[in-house]
Amino acid sequence: MDPVPLLQALIRCRSVTPADDGALAVLEAALVPLGFTCTRLRFGEVQNLFARRGSLPPHLCFAGHTDVVPPGDPADWMVDPFSAEIRDGSVMGRGATDMKGGIAAWIAAIAGLPRDLPGSLSLLITGDEEGPAQDGTIRVLHWMEQNGHRPDMCVVGEPTSRAVLGDTIKIGRRGSLNAVIRVHGTQGHSAYPQRADNPVHRLVRVLARLTEQPLDTGSRWFEPSTLQVTSFDVGNPATNVIPASAEARLNIRFNDLHSSASLDARLRQALEAEEARFDLETRCSGESFLTTPGPFVDALVQATLDATGVKPALDTGGGTSDARFITRICPVAELGAVGASMHKVNEATPVAELRQLAALYARVIGALLPGEPVS
Amino acid sequence: MDPVPLLQALIRCRSVTPADDGALAVLEAALVPLGFTCTRLRFGEVQNLFARRGSLPPHLCFAGHTDVVPPGDPADWMVDPFSAEIRDGSVMGRGATDMKGGIAAWIAAIAGLPRDLPGSLSLLITGDEEGPAQDGTIRVLHWMEQNGHRPDMCVVGEPTSRAVLGDTIKIGRRGSLNAVIRVHGTQGHSAYPQRADNPVHRLVRVLARLTEQPLDTGSRWFEPSTLQVTSFDVGNPATNVIPASAEARLNIRFNDLHSSASLDARLRQALEAEEARFDLETRCSGESFLTTPGPFVDALVQATLDATGVKPALDTGGGTSDARFITRICPVAELGAVGASMHKVNEATPVAELRQLAALYARVIGALLPGEPVS
Repeated sequence: MDPVPLLQALIRCRSVTPADDGALAVLEAALVPLGFTCTRLRFGEVQNLFARRGSLPPHLCFAGHTDVVPPGDPADWMVDPFSAEIRDGSVMGRGATDMKGGIAAWIAAIAGLPRDLPGSLSLLITGDEEGPAQDGTIRVLHWMEQNGHRPDMCVVGEPTSRAVLGDTIKIGRRGSLNAVIRVHGTQGHSAYPQRADNPVHRLVRVLARLTEQPLDTGSRWFEPSTLQVTSFDVGNPATNVIPASAEARLNIRFNDLHSSASLDARLRQALEAEEARFDLETRCSGESFLTTPGPFVDALVQATLDATGVKPALDTGGGTSDARFITRICPVAELGAVGASMHKVNEATPVAELRQLAALYARVIGALLPGEPVS
Repeated sequence: MDPVPLLQALIRCRSVTPADDGALAVLEAALVPLGFTCTRLRFGEVQNLFARRGSLPPHLCFAGHTDVVPPGDPADWMVDPFSAEIRDGSVMGRGATDMKGGIAAWIAAIAGLPRDLPGSLSLLITGDEEGPAQDGTIRVLHWMEQNGHRPDMCVVGEPTSRAVLGDTIKIGRRGSLNAVIRVHGTQGHSAYPQRADNPVHRLVRVLARLTEQPLDTGSRWFEPSTLQVTSFDVGNPATNVIPASAEARLNIRFNDLHSSASLDARLRQALEAEEARFDLETRCSGESFLTTPGPFVDALVQATLDATGVKPALDTGGGTSDARFITRICPVAELGAVGASMHKVNEATPVAELRQLAALYARVIGALLPGEPVS
């Protein structure tokens, strides 16, 4: 089975989050003939799909999303971003790499393998990965657990490859924490600062201390954590008035040496050391996680090497993905296309690479569900 | 001559900057009978008045302003803020202390003195002291210099007294400098700070350094200079984006150890030490100045002691006044009413204090224009 027509059919669905526009129906039409039982799961305005074939362990799940980011101004594109035209040997269109291509390749891989593989296969496809991610993977996983579909391992088809297909497998992701700090002072005339308490000065001191030293120097599998002050706002138009409060916004990307709780405590401590009156709000969009290398990751590495001749690097960089939710349930790793054009104008995936990805995924499935076929 | 009716007539003019509403006409009506030649000087939308009697040196000038700050909500006042009603022995109304009272007292003092004082007297009255101060004293002084009216000394009638009349003479003022600093960085994704350059971090470091140590510990006649960051603004709503630039606003009140030029250089140096790309704008609304104590100040002190029994402290605190312009031309000091209610609701000056101020001013004039009367 060629993944190209399936990818083209998917791209032609204008599934900008949270729209589905028929994308899941395209998948159902491909999966049902392959023996999958499909369950539509609608949460809020988001359409999700769970498909499974077989019920025996080991249960290998593939996770992906059919929603895409907006194309921007279509006039900036060489082709209509939802036309899926082939240009210079590449399928061009929004979602070609992120990540309708990965889904098409995985299904093509299954189609090329015998039906009687050991264990069982499932696909967890959400329409809410590029959006708030609240009515997608996290809720499908909850439904899966409650309905006897807890997987034993999971491959996420995000476009992890950097330069050539297979050069990178993501085995973890840093966590992300957003913080809003508001420091309260005492308003006053700027000519008489001794009668006031300037919250800007306090907040500047706190932030200077917080950014003075890096949070860490990295760990076995992770790059150093980062802390960035993304905004600092007072909004005081009066040059002769010391303002009553000052606010800063921080984003922290953290590795496995930290947690949202430890970082919240760290911020609180820095504010208390300043003896500032403050409000602190922290919101964690995902803890850091790591699928410690072992048999699951080893099998992925070997299958990639066999299929592409490239030895993949094990990486934990980049932003967050839905793997942050899946890690709570089973070992998870991310492996997919070259992501260079993702979220950009003229997003495209070479036809040859897409077919190579299907072959790679076939190796992966064979490696993760080894042994005698089901009788 | 009683200063009370003159003050009441002045308060009844609604001369909120830049309005005059007849205030200068009230003064002309009082001054012409005392032998003064009055010249109206209109600059832009501001009315000013220069009045002089005599042409011989020494030329003693009195400087004041008839404009007032807005009364706020009249409903908050015990009386109509422009009614000049007497309540509990005080003339109540906007400008009662700042500084229609001072002008009324000075004119009453002149009225009570012989006409044939030695030297000559003038009044420099502006309608633009509480406003931008661009079409007021500074332009009248220019006109005075060009028309042979350069004074030898000047008393400004601002309400300098703190607790009791005569307890404070201002012999200088700190300067005031406003600065806007914009630091430029390189925008980027907050997950990849190594590819960006966060201008908030740079500006935080610069400000932490600038506010770490006081600018000085004060000088012979001045309190320590102060530096206050009055605003810090980025306005970045995206938690995952490192912003391209960050801006801070500073107000510096500085003593005679600094000048606007030395402070501009200091800020520039701090920014250069950070190796930041930056824009720096500084605007000085008045350099610091000092009328070094000597015969002029001594005479004021002695006259005050004689008139009130209080030995005045020599002070340089507080905000700016038009004395900052006059200092370039002649020795200047400020001496006037108790200022506790200035700019506030129910601004008022006790009738007894106003009469005492007129007596004090009479002593001042006598001390500054001593010797034989003009024949």
